[in-house]
Amino acid sequence: MLSQLLRPEIIDLLKERKLSTLKEVLNDWDPADLATLINQIPEKERVIIFRLLKQDLATDTFEFLEVEQQIELIKAMGNGEVASILNEMAPDDRTALFEELPSFAVKQLVQLLSAEERKVAQTLLGYPEDSVGRLMTPDYIAVKSGWTIAESLKYIRENGEDSETLNIIFVIDENGKLIDDLKIRELIFAEPESKISDLMDESLVALHVTDDQETAVNVFKQYDRIALPVIDKNGLLLGIVTVDDVLDVAEEEATEDIQKIGGLTALEESYKSIPLLKMLKKRAGWLALLFIGEMFTATAMSYFEIEISKAVVLALFVPLIISSGGNSGSQASTLVIRALSIGEITLKDWLFIMKREMLSGAILGGILGAIGFIRIFAWQLMSDIYGLHWLLIGLTVTISLLGVVLWGTLAGSMLPLILKKLNFDPATASAPLVATLVDVTGLVIYFSVAILILSGTLL
Amino acid sequence: MLSQLLRPEIIDLLKERKLSTLKEVLNDWDPADLATLINQIPEKERVIIFRLLKQDLATDTFEFLEVEQQIELIKAMGNGEVASILNEMAPDDRTALFEELPSFAVKQLVQLLSAEERKVAQTLLGYPEDSVGRLMTPDYIAVKSGWTIAESLKYIRENGEDSETLNIIFVIDENGKLIDDLKIRELIFAEPESKISDLMDESLVALHVTDDQETAVNVFKQYDRIALPVIDKNGLLLGIVTVDDVLDVAEEEATEDIQKIGGLTALEESYKSIPLLKMLKKRAGWLALLFIGEMFTATAMSYFEIEISKAVVLALFVPLIISSGGNSGSQASTLVIRALSIGEITLKDWLFIMKREMLSGAILGGILGAIGFIRIFAWQLMSDIYGLHWLLIGLTVTISLLGVVLWGTLAGSMLPLILKKLNFDPATASAPLVATLVDVTGLVIYFSVAILILSGTLL
Repeated sequence: MLSQLLRPEIIDLLKERKLSTLKEVLNDWDPADLATLINQIPEKERVIIFRLLKQDLATDTFEFLEVEQQIELIKAMGNGEVASILNEMAPDDRTALFEELPSFAVKQLVQLLSAEERKVAQTLLGYPEDSVGRLMTPDYIAVKSGWTIAESLKYIRENGEDSETLNIIFVIDENGKLIDDLKIRELIFAEPESKISDLMDESLVALHVTDDQETAVNVFKQYDRIALPVIDKNGLLLGIVTVDDVLDVAEEEATEDIQKIGGLTALEESYKSIPLLKMLKKRAGWLALLFIGEMFTATAMSYFEIEISKAVVLALFVPLIISSGGNSGSQASTLVIRALSIGEITLKDWLFIMKREMLSGAILGGILGAIGFIRIFAWQLMSDIYGLHWLLIGLTVTISLLGVVLWGTLAGSMLPLILKKLNFDPATASAPLVATLVDVTGLVIYFSVAILILSGTLL
Repeated sequence: MLSQLLRPEIIDLLKERKLSTLKEVLNDWDPADLATLINQIPEKERVIIFRLLKQDLATDTFEFLEVEQQIELIKAMGNGEVASILNEMAPDDRTALFEELPSFAVKQLVQLLSAEERKVAQTLLGYPEDSVGRLMTPDYIAVKSGWTIAESLKYIRENGEDSETLNIIFVIDENGKLIDDLKIRELIFAEPESKISDLMDESLVALHVTDDQETAVNVFKQYDRIALPVIDKNGLLLGIVTVDDVLDVAEEEATEDIQKIGGLTALEESYKSIPLLKMLKKRAGWLALLFIGEMFTATAMSYFEIEISKAVVLALFVPLIISSGGNSGSQASTLVIRALSIGEITLKDWLFIMKREMLSGAILGGILGAIGFIRIFAWQLMSDIYGLHWLLIGLTVTISLLGVVLWGTLAGSMLPLILKKLNFDPATASAPLVATLVDVTGLVIYFSVAILILSGTLL
């Protein structure tokens, strides 16, 4: 944080190629700050900065970089440099990098790893994408229940160097099966001669290696833990997941949901760094699809062309009525999508949601219908704009609003559930998608109500 | 997790009022699981379960409960019980509870605290809402730079019981000013006789007590820390913020943003637990406001009533054209809102964003315009539906789409920035709000283009 003030000077040193001064200054920096610095300088100069760092600091800094920058640096570095960084990286960060590379590149890079690290890397890559296994690191500390506290602390001192967290110590049985977790403070405050088993409380929270990462976020939130153990289906301890990685997952998932709700494919890169063309592809796809869907409104309206030509006044309310359906649908779908993704509701709650949203839709539709009627009444009083049949027009608009909002709310709340049931991402039920779906139906509802009420008078 | 399997039996024990068996079983549970259990049983029976728990476990469980349930339990308990829980609670969790209570209730509850805890509570409540100060706990461990490792470890052993995390140890100078942070592992692995100052690296990340909580989320994400120190403007160490609380903040902020983008006031409660009427208020307000805004579409269209009656075909494309503006605006506003909230962009980037979105809008508008033209051309070939002037109609639709999408994209991207500049929440620029704003303008653009192109032929 403090070092950010120094940045302009760093840029100057870099421009003047005062590399030995730079080396001295930068090797005192925090790796996260170095990553931010590298982010902000031109691509060509990044590898220069990077090569000035000591081995350990270089690896730490590399771990803090965005994956796109990591890839770029790897391309600019020689095999020896890449090998030493990859071998030193935390296995979970390495998996995150490999995930974004084409498989032939991963194969080449895995060859650069030592036999031991290669085995770790291949195991982690073996778990499904977006599973807890991909987030996991095998660098944890596990002690056995029969050990004394003194033995355990000695073991931790000797083997804990690489461990991601020492806050939590895991207890396993003779077969490697996870049986408990202890806070390091419990060990520090315990009698050195007492046994690990004396501290155990048998209360244990663990993630399963094939769990979805979203599940991991919700478990962390529920239990307020800093690290959670990961087990396989036999209960064997495989690794740990730490809360800092989970925070990143939570933020990424929220960003993806938000972008999908906004009606585009998730960017998966930052708004500022994504190339324009790549971003346009993610936006144009959905926009074109929604446009084609929305074309049905022209088709639907053409069926009512005669009615419109008889009563042009009907056309005036078209945007008002269909947008009300879209807005109420967007509210409902947003609520259901978020509640699903943070685990507040599950598919099993569908009936509860349906009842609740039908009631909500009816009430909200009633409110909008009432406002709409008052509006028509007021305009009529002021200017006789709607003529003789203003009451019938008002009724048409009011009843249509009730129907359209009820339908929009119902469709908006059920669509995410249906998508989830079909194993699609519920967030695909974006506000614009729901609006588009509801628009066509809304037109049909509106003109049908109009024909029913206005036949014999205006129509 | 494991104990969840036992839940049906617990419910049976509770129904049969086998309280001594219940007491035995429940006192072995994890507080987070107990909180989930309490969440799932009828309101009246919650206090029964709660009273069976030992003092420490009761406090821990209470901390895991949702604030609404905490309030409910407080109402059901006597002053003595409430006092012992409030005095034992972690100060940050206590602040979160107080935040949700009316001020007269807070005053009463603060009276129940011991003199020492009262002072802590009043200090924390003195910081602005949504500031880092409200998330902070003063239970941390700080050592002085002149101490030896052995002295420090002894101090930690004697004073660390209440500390929220022992993973990070803070170093202060004689005046209480924060000068460094160390990982406990550095102390454990260091020579007992060496000094704290030997371990110090002068690299320090700290939050300021009046920082926004959103800032805290971004700093935690950047630095991958488990706990961060909080300082005042003089650099004095006031407390710490832990990542588990930050994860909660991140999730809540994302939920609020998503709900606002969906076009409703943030619920601030879970979808399942919020009373229907309360939820309807949060939805009806925006829906009615949007509806009133959308009424201007009827007004706008009434200015073009003569054109519509001359060429009813124009009315058919109204939903298609205005929804395209709404959808492109919704994409743009969503992207900008999220990028602002996770710190990818700031207000300073407005010109970059504007240029980028104008270019995007022109390209996206061009794509939709082309699709629209092809559609009209194809329908015309098949059925001569648009008659003699189909080419002019096609041109009108195409040019209008280009204009409307360009305008929608620009408005959608700039509105969140303008709101932020005016100190409103950018997420208020919801998809439905942008759509509504763009609808009226879209109609004016469309009919103006139509009059320009079709005058003398259809009009």
